[in-house]
Amino acid sequence: MEGRAGLTSTPAALPYFVAFSQLLGLTLVAVTGAWLGLYRGGIAWESTLQFNVHPLCMVMGMIFLQGDALLVYRVFRKEAKRTTKVLHGLLHVFAFIIALVGLVAVFDYHKKMGYADLYSLHSWCGILVFVLYFAQWLAGFGLFLFPGASLSLRSRYRSLHVFVGAAVFLLSVGTALLGLKEALLFKLGVKYSTFEPEGVLANALGLLLLCFGVAVLFLLARADWKRPPQAEEQALSMDFKTLTEGDSPGSQ
Amino acid sequence: MEGRAGLTSTPAALPYFVAFSQLLGLTLVAVTGAWLGLYRGGIAWESTLQFNVHPLCMVMGMIFLQGDALLVYRVFRKEAKRTTKVLHGLLHVFAFIIALVGLVAVFDYHKKMGYADLYSLHSWCGILVFVLYFAQWLAGFGLFLFPGASLSLRSRYRSLHVFVGAAVFLLSVGTALLGLKEALLFKLGVKYSTFEPEGVLANALGLLLLCFGVAVLFLLARADWKRPPQAEEQALSMDFKTLTEGDSPGSQ
Repeated sequence: MEGRAGLTSTPAALPYFVAFSQLLGLTLVAVTGAWLGLYRGGIAWESTLQFNVHPLCMVMGMIFLQGDALLVYRVFRKEAKRTTKVLHGLLHVFAFIIALVGLVAVFDYHKKMGYADLYSLHSWCGILVFVLYFAQWLAGFGLFLFPGASLSLRSRYRSLHVFVGAAVFLLSVGTALLGLKEALLFKLGVKYSTFEPEGVLANALGLLLLCFGVAVLFLLARADWKRPPQAEEQALSMDFKTLTEGDSPGSQ
Repeated sequence: MEGRAGLTSTPAALPYFVAFSQLLGLTLVAVTGAWLGLYRGGIAWESTLQFNVHPLCMVMGMIFLQGDALLVYRVFRKEAKRTTKVLHGLLHVFAFIIALVGLVAVFDYHKKMGYADLYSLHSWCGILVFVLYFAQWLAGFGLFLFPGASLSLRSRYRSLHVFVGAAVFLLSVGTALLGLKEALLFKLGVKYSTFEPEGVLANALGLLLLCFGVAVLFLLARADWKRPPQAEEQALSMDFKTLTEGDSPGSQ
């Protein structure tokens, strides 16, 4: 029954939920910045401040931008499929580059300080998520944007791509929570239990991370909020034609 | 297209994925037990060992049993709807009771040791998840098992119930990861970075938690693995009749 009503119009509640998710996401980035500015001395590519580049870049790239890349198909409902695909792919590229800067920052910082790498659960999850994210992007590019994949292969891979995309996003949120907890316990230690202002702010940041994760998942999960098929997608061959000819016909 | 093929038969791959998820879940419980037995002195309702009741109960209740309760509708595909509902509700009751024992254990342990309560992100998330879990159970019981709710109300609430159920399960996995990390860092401190055997085992336990979470989500997400509607559900009034008369007609 779902997903058929109002095929061409945007569901009434969708823009409000999208706006709410963006408000959450921007607050998340702002609170991360406030935490690093107020309690960690700010951001720089030198001294111990280099570490702080890591959480900021990861929250901007692997949480906010990755989440927004997943929402592209809920927001751009009437644009040509190819335009939406390219935007989806590009947002993931930006997210990947920002996250890469965040990764380089922490490995470089560890090297300068003589700290061990990749011993913690946070780092194991982080590497796993980053590799999955890159593999998912390559597979998505190869099958959905690069011409050549058959329609049947695309159709079979699509649901797996959507699931893995959502799973990698949720794993990113989990990894960020682990990193936040690690940063807090390393610095505060037993003082964490005295409700230090930094601890309370960082806990609130953790809850914001969870709320953003749940908000994105909610937007993705509602069957009647999925992007309706456009005219050129309903005529199956057109989609393939569009992709192979590199053209983006307007669908309205 | 999905979800219509082979309406009455069980999808070929489903039993293997269910079996794999159960193998993961049981391994998770076993590795939690091994961690507590090998590195934390085992389990008891006295001395410092009382704390260890907490992680074991939470993994058994809020992760393994909660996850299995969500899978009931994927496994019992041909049984009467009411039987499946009752099993779903009962598994959640068992999960809730086991988790309650785990909660009492940690609060009692904190009290005996003079430790502060509810200061950490793990504890904030834990309380949030537990309250949501209880509220979701009450709403589910009131609307789906207790007679009286109208069919249209049930139908409108169903998709929200499924989403909140999956979200609470994923939040439980995230909360468990935070707790594991906390337990590790409090005990190991800087030794964590020297690849202590306990740290490596606990990291593996964290990855198992993530894998079980993803496996359950995958089983829930596949549209063509959803429980097919039975004869009595297709005649809408029968479902209501079944519930109000407290009867469970065989649907095959």
